[in-house]
Amino acid sequence: MSMREKALEMHREYPGKIGTFSKVSLNQKEDLGLAYSPGVAEPCKEIEQNKEKVYEYTSKGNLVGVVSNGTAVLGLGNIGADASMPVMEGKAILFKEFAEIDAFPVCLDIKDVDQFVATVKAMEPTFGGINLEDIAAPDCFVIEERLKKELNIPVFHDDQHGTAIVTLAGLINSFKIVEKKAENSRIVVNGAGAAGVAITKLLLSLGVEDVILCDSVGPIYEGRTERMNVHKEAIAAKTNRRKVSGTLADAVKGADVVIGVSVPNCITQEMIQSMNRDPIVFAMSNPVPEIMPDEAKAAGVAVIGTGRSDLPNQINNVLAFPGIFRGALDVRASEINEEMKVAAAYAIAGLILEEDLTPDYVIPNPLDPRVVQAVSSAVAEAAVKTGVAKQPNGNVKSSSNI
Amino acid sequence: MSMREKALEMHREYPGKIGTFSKVSLNQKEDLGLAYSPGVAEPCKEIEQNKEKVYEYTSKGNLVGVVSNGTAVLGLGNIGADASMPVMEGKAILFKEFAEIDAFPVCLDIKDVDQFVATVKAMEPTFGGINLEDIAAPDCFVIEERLKKELNIPVFHDDQHGTAIVTLAGLINSFKIVEKKAENSRIVVNGAGAAGVAITKLLLSLGVEDVILCDSVGPIYEGRTERMNVHKEAIAAKTNRRKVSGTLADAVKGADVVIGVSVPNCITQEMIQSMNRDPIVFAMSNPVPEIMPDEAKAAGVAVIGTGRSDLPNQINNVLAFPGIFRGALDVRASEINEEMKVAAAYAIAGLILEEDLTPDYVIPNPLDPRVVQAVSSAVAEAAVKTGVAKQPNGNVKSSSNI
Repeated sequence: MSMREKALEMHREYPGKIGTFSKVSLNQKEDLGLAYSPGVAEPCKEIEQNKEKVYEYTSKGNLVGVVSNGTAVLGLGNIGADASMPVMEGKAILFKEFAEIDAFPVCLDIKDVDQFVATVKAMEPTFGGINLEDIAAPDCFVIEERLKKELNIPVFHDDQHGTAIVTLAGLINSFKIVEKKAENSRIVVNGAGAAGVAITKLLLSLGVEDVILCDSVGPIYEGRTERMNVHKEAIAAKTNRRKVSGTLADAVKGADVVIGVSVPNCITQEMIQSMNRDPIVFAMSNPVPEIMPDEAKAAGVAVIGTGRSDLPNQINNVLAFPGIFRGALDVRASEINEEMKVAAAYAIAGLILEEDLTPDYVIPNPLDPRVVQAVSSAVAEAAVKTGVAKQPNGNVKSSSNI
Repeated sequence: MSMREKALEMHREYPGKIGTFSKVSLNQKEDLGLAYSPGVAEPCKEIEQNKEKVYEYTSKGNLVGVVSNGTAVLGLGNIGADASMPVMEGKAILFKEFAEIDAFPVCLDIKDVDQFVATVKAMEPTFGGINLEDIAAPDCFVIEERLKKELNIPVFHDDQHGTAIVTLAGLINSFKIVEKKAENSRIVVNGAGAAGVAITKLLLSLGVEDVILCDSVGPIYEGRTERMNVHKEAIAAKTNRRKVSGTLADAVKGADVVIGVSVPNCITQEMIQSMNRDPIVFAMSNPVPEIMPDEAKAAGVAVIGTGRSDLPNQINNVLAFPGIFRGALDVRASEINEEMKVAAAYAIAGLILEEDLTPDYVIPNPLDPRVVQAVSSAVAEAAVKTGVAKQPNGNVKSSSNI
């Protein structure tokens, strides 16, 4: 049976992949009277008097909304809210299986940014965190920025930051192999969508000085006029200080790292040969990468990673988002800030001991059971350190009763 | 331990009472690749090409949103969206336990009717049905009416129709005991909130000609000027043709039935003594009824029902909504219409054989395991008969894989 047939069969046999269950028994009239009227009035009254009690008496503290409008689903593009459901349901079960977080898919038929923001804001009472998913750039930047400002719970656009964090984790270990320092390296990011912009920003916040972001036109630089927008202007002001223009090939010349979050087959062997010694290439277009690992290796890469599960060094978001939300929820963080993201990247990278590091093993396996614990602890600690944790001693309750 | 303490303890021990689970295993890389990227793209593409396939490949067909803004929660009033969470979570587990429907609480911090409607409409891709809950009158009437018009999935305000259906079920059996016919009876409904208005409308649609709805001012009649609004005007035009004015006591004189969905202790023994022979009283204010059963019996009632689980003849919505949604989802009904509601009432009433009927047993026990099946079959059949079923042969898939 083909992968396509297997996937359809799984989805037909278990429609939605996700289900709900009752944690309490309802076999007797008394149970009904406690879980529902009249008993349920008691926790309601407690919460009415003290809003914080919602974390004690409801699902909120362990519940993440996986919210999309279906405008940029996987590599499929703007397929709409209905057709995005299987992805959001899949994401929700990953939250559950990897981090024991209850997550619920919310697919919204909304294209307008203002209405999207207002809708998610209105749902704040229900959720302890919001994972934005598969929303097209540049709207995703505005939506996330506004929601972070307006909500008191963590908001995280996984396509941006999940990818950026796992990429950074892979880079941290790759630099160890080639014995270079990130700060002194030249890094090219190809693809100015959600992931590319977030990777660029995270590298800047780490102190990398020579980053060039390329879109389909070529390198983005201050003063470029073609196909710019406010988001690209902001990037241009902080990156590519050498003002490299032209094509991707021009940007790549002499670079230490090329990160592709773009389109199949756009990185050539010639480009790799034009890079600095021991080039690092992460070719994450999926399912067909920017360049296949065997080609890249033949051209002399030191480390190659992709987004594919059947190849070594898979840059998979599942290494990041479950532990990040677990850590954020455990200390009831009000946001997921840069320090928490960087801490997550170092935690992922640190799971591979230096003696075990090889060019084909710079990033842990997505099913490595140590990952969630390592990431959540590091993220919780960073939240406490940066003062965004409302419950620094940990919300043991919500994670233990699942 | 008091009921209050027991209820708080249950909610602390099992925060939220509801959880999510994965129906599929994710132990191997291959599982991940089917449930999530890249395999998940296949059902997405199928749905993109044919929107109806969302029922085949996602949770939608067996998923109900329990949506509230917390403006009229139980008897607690406008306690807000956060504090309403325990009720919506409780409702969600009732859906699961009674009808194997996955239900999810959505508490919205929205008071504005237009924004509420727009938000629920935007969530349509996610849900197979919407159960509105604990929204204050008169907004609840406008919200439900508009959502029914704008959405292609069933929308049901349980505080209105659930209560009306179970009340009607109880009345059907009560009339058998007193050997009267509903059509020829005088019925007074006290309380012009969500439930009172819906009960009145359902009685009218059944052909009862002499119905009087009373609010806190007294009987509503055409031409009344005090405390009227468009909803009451509409009711006034169709009820109380004798234009009884004055107080509740004036309306009750000579009545066959009094239904209270109002406030504690507002029905007196004198009122009952002023009614027609063999009076029927449903006193559903909770936890303190309009009149206690022992007082009502001492005054000569033939049948008395309340909303309380510790007294006979409990008018409990849980007899209706699980089976109603089960039936509607099974045949993928586009709405829940009057015929389906009436069919549900007769199905509930019909579970008590005539030889088992007594004044203290006119309505089945809420935990009677026959109820859901009887209601769902009747509702599905009525949906097919009235042409609102999109899948008349039944959606066996969604209900069997839970």
